[in-house]
Amino acid sequence: MLQFGKIAVIGAGNVAYTLCNVMKDKGINPYCVFVRDKNKAAQVGEELGVEAVSDYKKVLESDFIIISVNDDSISDVAAQLIDYKGIVVHTSGTKPSTVLNKIARFGVFYPLQTMSKNRKIRFDDVPLLIFANTEDDLATLKEFAELFSNNVIVCDDEQRKAIHLSAVFVSNFTNVMLGIGDKLLKEKGLPLTIMKPLVMEMMEKSFETLPQKALTGPARRGDFATIGEHEKMLSYKPDELAIYMILTDYITEKYNKTDEEL
Amino acid sequence: MLQFGKIAVIGAGNVAYTLCNVMKDKGINPYCVFVRDKNKAAQVGEELGVEAVSDYKKVLESDFIIISVNDDSISDVAAQLIDYKGIVVHTSGTKPSTVLNKIARFGVFYPLQTMSKNRKIRFDDVPLLIFANTEDDLATLKEFAELFSNNVIVCDDEQRKAIHLSAVFVSNFTNVMLGIGDKLLKEKGLPLTIMKPLVMEMMEKSFETLPQKALTGPARRGDFATIGEHEKMLSYKPDELAIYMILTDYITEKYNKTDEEL
Repeated sequence: MLQFGKIAVIGAGNVAYTLCNVMKDKGINPYCVFVRDKNKAAQVGEELGVEAVSDYKKVLESDFIIISVNDDSISDVAAQLIDYKGIVVHTSGTKPSTVLNKIARFGVFYPLQTMSKNRKIRFDDVPLLIFANTEDDLATLKEFAELFSNNVIVCDDEQRKAIHLSAVFVSNFTNVMLGIGDKLLKEKGLPLTIMKPLVMEMMEKSFETLPQKALTGPARRGDFATIGEHEKMLSYKPDELAIYMILTDYITEKYNKTDEEL
Repeated sequence: MLQFGKIAVIGAGNVAYTLCNVMKDKGINPYCVFVRDKNKAAQVGEELGVEAVSDYKKVLESDFIIISVNDDSISDVAAQLIDYKGIVVHTSGTKPSTVLNKIARFGVFYPLQTMSKNRKIRFDDVPLLIFANTEDDLATLKEFAELFSNNVIVCDDEQRKAIHLSAVFVSNFTNVMLGIGDKLLKEKGLPLTIMKPLVMEMMEKSFETLPQKALTGPARRGDFATIGEHEKMLSYKPDELAIYMILTDYITEKYNKTDEEL
């Protein structure tokens, strides 16, 4: 705590909550949490066990500010902090660090993980993607991040944007695939949980080798009889059919080469 | 072994290999494994530690046959077994059990898992989807399956077909999403492994609650500014852009309702 001074967190969403809790787990009590909506401040303060404020006075007394609000609100918050002397970071995957560049010392502290207010996650292997506009502050930020995770990665705005886009595919879109799988099973009275061993093994295998080496299934095998049957089964679900077809075509086109070409 | 008699396995692919190894782990030595290609039989026999044969004589001496060949070859194999008196099952997710109905006693033994010859998997939670054309044989098959897994599910051809189609979405297509994510990271010199904590947490969360409740990201939030940026970033990759757009539209259309509507 002393080392990094007084830490203020701005925001009361999933990421702000998780960060406050993770800090407290390490014995670092945030100096205050800023909650824009006055009517919610008391509740947030109580839930987090941190002093919650709705004006910037106390925030400006801190040494280090973590802005953890919706992407679109970051610049509004930054406008309040122009004369601030400490380090200010945001936690966004997409917004460039430069959205904060009217503040003297700025950076990014982006935890690459999906977070919910009420869900505890293992934080020690969560990649923390950090950036700061001076080498000294980057060193400080790195030390801070390493309190929480073994997986601290310094990366620039371009890299972080690519990581965020990649995360949409590997996290959001894989989730959609589970959603469609669930829907198809429900129609036959079956629970999605029967898929868990398959999904987990496929994920492990994909990370151990390479995704394309782990791929199996009718499209990978070029088994057009099965593909035709699947398309027939999906004919009453045009949206899911369209997704089936575009992904099957993608595999057929990109993957069905000899191993050397892959 | 005695209880189920002599067991013959037909095939030398990933599933046949895994099943032979799983049986041996439980002290059940397959009576023989049938390998169509004479030139490969010796090698397969040696690798599996099971007698490998290339004619049906020894297979027909068995009490129970597991056909584990390509979907398209199942009926050819079945034609060789018309007068067989024991139980014959295939291991296909898509082919109906009736592809074996010229044999008196037939069924299905479909392990819902992705398998590779050289990869050990935990088999005890793999769903084994079974079916037999008589109640007695179904009971026998169930007892056999329960030797290997705590997760034996009796299901008919229609259910199994739906499960297989669902598996294409939750396993093959999620794999494709990891492949695209990997490609995007590689371009910035980053390894896919940084995504593992995120992906695993998202999967756990999706199975614990419901996929649609676990979904986050720009499409779910209706964050069209970020979506627009992502589309710009993908503009030089038309195939990946098309996938991004169709899945983003799908989320926007199906998910962006109030919680009650979900």
